[in-house]
Amino acid sequence: MNGLLTDLYELTMAAGYFAAGKHEETGVFEFTVRRLPRNRDFVLIAGIHRAVDYLLNLRFEPAEIAYLRGLPGFRHTPAEFWDYLADFRFCGDMFAVPEGSVIYEGQPVLNIRAPLIEAQIPETWLLSAITFETLIATKAARIAHAAEGRDVIEFGTRRAHTPEAGVLGARAAYIGGCAGTSNTLAGFKYGVPVAGTAAHSWIMSFESEFEAFRELQELLCEETVQLIDTYDPIEGANAVTRLGRPLWGVRIDSGDFLALSKQVRRILDDAGLEGAKIMASGDLNESKIEALVRAGAPIDAFGVGTELATSADAPSMGAIYKLVEIEQDGHTRYTAKLSPEKSTLAGAKQLFRYPEFDVLGLHDECAGGSEAMLKPVIIRGRLVQPLPSAAEIRKLAKKNLTPWPSADRRTEISASLQALQKDFAAAKAPR
Amino acid sequence: MNGLLTDLYELTMAAGYFAAGKHEETGVFEFTVRRLPRNRDFVLIAGIHRAVDYLLNLRFEPAEIAYLRGLPGFRHTPAEFWDYLADFRFCGDMFAVPEGSVIYEGQPVLNIRAPLIEAQIPETWLLSAITFETLIATKAARIAHAAEGRDVIEFGTRRAHTPEAGVLGARAAYIGGCAGTSNTLAGFKYGVPVAGTAAHSWIMSFESEFEAFRELQELLCEETVQLIDTYDPIEGANAVTRLGRPLWGVRIDSGDFLALSKQVRRILDDAGLEGAKIMASGDLNESKIEALVRAGAPIDAFGVGTELATSADAPSMGAIYKLVEIEQDGHTRYTAKLSPEKSTLAGAKQLFRYPEFDVLGLHDECAGGSEAMLKPVIIRGRLVQPLPSAAEIRKLAKKNLTPWPSADRRTEISASLQALQKDFAAAKAPR
Repeated sequence: MNGLLTDLYELTMAAGYFAAGKHEETGVFEFTVRRLPRNRDFVLIAGIHRAVDYLLNLRFEPAEIAYLRGLPGFRHTPAEFWDYLADFRFCGDMFAVPEGSVIYEGQPVLNIRAPLIEAQIPETWLLSAITFETLIATKAARIAHAAEGRDVIEFGTRRAHTPEAGVLGARAAYIGGCAGTSNTLAGFKYGVPVAGTAAHSWIMSFESEFEAFRELQELLCEETVQLIDTYDPIEGANAVTRLGRPLWGVRIDSGDFLALSKQVRRILDDAGLEGAKIMASGDLNESKIEALVRAGAPIDAFGVGTELATSADAPSMGAIYKLVEIEQDGHTRYTAKLSPEKSTLAGAKQLFRYPEFDVLGLHDECAGGSEAMLKPVIIRGRLVQPLPSAAEIRKLAKKNLTPWPSADRRTEISASLQALQKDFAAAKAPR
Repeated sequence: MNGLLTDLYELTMAAGYFAAGKHEETGVFEFTVRRLPRNRDFVLIAGIHRAVDYLLNLRFEPAEIAYLRGLPGFRHTPAEFWDYLADFRFCGDMFAVPEGSVIYEGQPVLNIRAPLIEAQIPETWLLSAITFETLIATKAARIAHAAEGRDVIEFGTRRAHTPEAGVLGARAAYIGGCAGTSNTLAGFKYGVPVAGTAAHSWIMSFESEFEAFRELQELLCEETVQLIDTYDPIEGANAVTRLGRPLWGVRIDSGDFLALSKQVRRILDDAGLEGAKIMASGDLNESKIEALVRAGAPIDAFGVGTELATSADAPSMGAIYKLVEIEQDGHTRYTAKLSPEKSTLAGAKQLFRYPEFDVLGLHDECAGGSEAMLKPVIIRGRLVQPLPSAAEIRKLAKKNLTPWPSADRRTEISASLQALQKDFAAAKAPR
């Protein structure tokens, strides 16, 4: 499963490592947040569950191997490589920070220690899967923070980059602090609370808006959320008051949310529907929500779609997955990339978190009084303990986001890691 | 399959239509590009294949139905609805523009005519699936256009919003004009040409860069692309010349591409490697490529990742899926949304394309000398003809992009469609 869902060069390199007799060597690769996404002071990590799922199930089917054998780049690949690929299993170790961790620029998220080929092939998948959920969890955290305790519901599957990404995005948004999602499958699969009642098409499918409201109320009773802006939101709100209870409240999906929410609040209150809530949705993001909250808009819940489901202002993150050391015949060689602006630190690392700052050190350092953030998840190809549920991760994230992470937090480089870089630079004679 | 991969409100409405006895009514929904993505004058449509796949396979499994029955919003749903859902099949019609079509703001892409519930549920999936591939195909078209005939290879799976989105994005990028992709599964599944040789980790895994180059050349021969910037691109280029042929060429992944490509070209030429090519990759987009081409950079091929795989400058599109008419007891009622800035045109439509302009008319109008762009794809739940391959769609897209579509192209509204809007506005007394 999923064997071919990687960049071709991972497989070309695999063939090359095999041909060069390097597949018995052990590589350590690190997934690092080289650059934070635009407008972000930190990221909230999500997506580790998908890394686990991938590594435990990574296989190459006969038809996939046959396809590879027909590609020009594999013409000179030794035949034994195909047997190797048919038997491929990930048998290495993965350490990762827990989902729901707050991570700053330059910090590691995950590492893989495995035979070189097993550590190389996952690069593409790990970068994509973890980066995506991390972007959405981070965006959700910002939006929920702006809403200051009001519920935020993730509404964005229709804008997600594929419906399937919408399911994972919904999970990540929940982890980040959303109260729920419109994505039904995310409820079924991940236990995310689901929400949703009716769209404009519901209203339009009836001869009159009032009839549509009445039918919905009959179906949903106290769960009823009337969408009032299909024709005119004020007339819509008045129609809602004519029906009265049972009712959760109303949703406004367009227009000036501040002015409208005040008018609608008054209409509802005047009709004795003080308990009815107001939800706003439509092109919202953290700054618009912050402005509405500051202005005292009587909005009880926000539905956020496009901006959340695509992390619209920052749809990518400069994450990297780089070889940091390699073990050959019992001795360790440290590796790093020296390209300008894209250089990396040699050596397998650990992230030590203290209350006020972080230390990036060697993976076998001991830093008393800190939490070692990279924890064993897979050892010798086996999961070491069950993964937490989305609800548990959400709780951890909430704890990690309280108080709100500081943009000024610093990451120190430990003395041992610094010494290793000096040794590496001195020893390095690449050609 | 996929029954729950939709917004919950589609299913709440389904239950409501059923409860209100409206599931025998026929609805027509239209997928329209309400607003073009940022920085775009048109979009290149892709993703219709996924709409087909979804509609033909849309099912609700017993466990999924059990999950829905447990949700508070379905407490008052009639029990017969669950039998209906267990037997659910899409039996309606879908008309769509062919993948590879150029579509402008306000134009329809697809419509569904089906029993109301069957037409309602697909909304979420169709919007996400078609919008995503359309965004990527459009971005790819812009990038390939900027490259003026030089090959562009899609390198972005690691930045895609999930690895699976990377596969579909690779297909869409190929349709848009990319010469190939690094995504191996896109090659296997969709016949997209695949490319890729080695990453920095390959270089770093060897004691010296020269050894890494030599091993790669042994494996790949004339397919060899040496990545020369792991330590220093000029030293890297010199090492390549020491090895000589066979060789495709070199790749530069960082630094000043204009200056470096000129230096490297000279080094290769001076060594008699005039046939060796230069590929550039790393944070490229259409404007950077245009600048490099204009400046005469001797670059033969571009690898584009992040910006293409996420449509970074425009990661979403204002596409809508709206009810435009409904047939009850043999008579047709037209529907539209009147929300400010979000209003829609009532009535099922056809897009008539003339060489110089387009006409948006009624779906049963006849407009001589034009091409009716919405064509039957699924009729009564069955595919009317096999779908074209990605290569065939790419050819059509190329034809449609030559000459490059004008930003000034206009869309007229036919007299009949205008008349229908007047009638609708006059008749409309929504409450």
